[in-house]
Amino acid sequence: MSKRIAGPEIERLIQLLAKVPGLGPRSARRAALHLIKKKEQLLGPLAAAMAEALDTVRICSTCGNVDTCDPCTVCTDARRDPATLIVVEDVADLWALERAGAINARYHVLGGTLSPLDGVGPEELNIKALVDRVAAGGFGELILAVNATVEGQTTAHYITDQLDGLGVKVTRLAHGVPVGGELDYLDEGTLAAALKSRTTF
Amino acid sequence: MSKRIAGPEIERLIQLLAKVPGLGPRSARRAALHLIKKKEQLLGPLAAAMAEALDTVRICSTCGNVDTCDPCTVCTDARRDPATLIVVEDVADLWALERAGAINARYHVLGGTLSPLDGVGPEELNIKALVDRVAAGGFGELILAVNATVEGQTTAHYITDQLDGLGVKVTRLAHGVPVGGELDYLDEGTLAAALKSRTTF
Repeated sequence: MSKRIAGPEIERLIQLLAKVPGLGPRSARRAALHLIKKKEQLLGPLAAAMAEALDTVRICSTCGNVDTCDPCTVCTDARRDPATLIVVEDVADLWALERAGAINARYHVLGGTLSPLDGVGPEELNIKALVDRVAAGGFGELILAVNATVEGQTTAHYITDQLDGLGVKVTRLAHGVPVGGELDYLDEGTLAAALKSRTTF
Repeated sequence: MSKRIAGPEIERLIQLLAKVPGLGPRSARRAALHLIKKKEQLLGPLAAAMAEALDTVRICSTCGNVDTCDPCTVCTDARRDPATLIVVEDVADLWALERAGAINARYHVLGGTLSPLDGVGPEELNIKALVDRVAAGGFGELILAVNATVEGQTTAHYITDQLDGLGVKVTRLAHGVPVGGELDYLDEGTLAAALKSRTTF
């Protein structure tokens, strides 16, 4: 804006909102105005919820998940299968798998993937804790639910090597046609994988 | 989510973020995770900025704008033309006109449009203060920058009636083809208005 049309507190709120994923400079202005208009119903509670999250959120020392308790809600949930461990790159992946609701397992969050070009080596990831966790025994299967990218697959291979000799069965997610997907829009790699892993109808 | 996978503080943050315009339930989860990961750089400052806005933001008693001072930054800006008053429906419209940077005037924010069906009569809007402000003298022109909707135009007519006899020249924004717009995609009303108000090339 060419001229100052609002106090610095409002400008700052807009600038910070613009850094939230999903909001840009334009929608941040709209969001700020909406928040200001709904001071009591939204701005106040949201400010309080953020302050509370700031105080209470921590990283689970067992699995790397974020939660307000340590060990986290997932690690302390006694109804989960204690013998199955799903390895994910990010907390967002853990949440996505939980939304699918297809499995009742425990998780281990790596915090990223191996990426030598970006300076991410095994030490930067939550891999040593994973190996220690598996070595402590009790897990029958470890599911590598990493992204189907080059970095994800490299990380999966590295982890498999590290777990060698610990007697745990290592599996990975199936490759194939996404449910609801149209063949015409799929890449060759996915189609080849789907053909290769075809099942009896 | 079928099972609790995070503490109530995180769930509450996601629920509140989902109410921010521009974010939905899915992007609110993504935003919450991003905020939690950037605790020091983003979550903390944003929580503080919101708390500060909550404390400091008020409605300008002169024009109805939102700001952290009263009278607001726009009303107290001595470099603005004191004789031109732009009437807008909402603070967002004031911000939009200021971004255009085409005029150096003062503003009056109505806070909505007349809408009998929704129970919005003249008393619900900032119209009496507008009439008083104009009656106090000093304004040569009043620009009705209301939306080109039925409600906006009804409101414009009502305001014009109220200002009758106060000796202020009332103008409205031009109708026409938006800059960069393609004729093919424009509605008949806009094209008719653009033809009627055609200018010498």
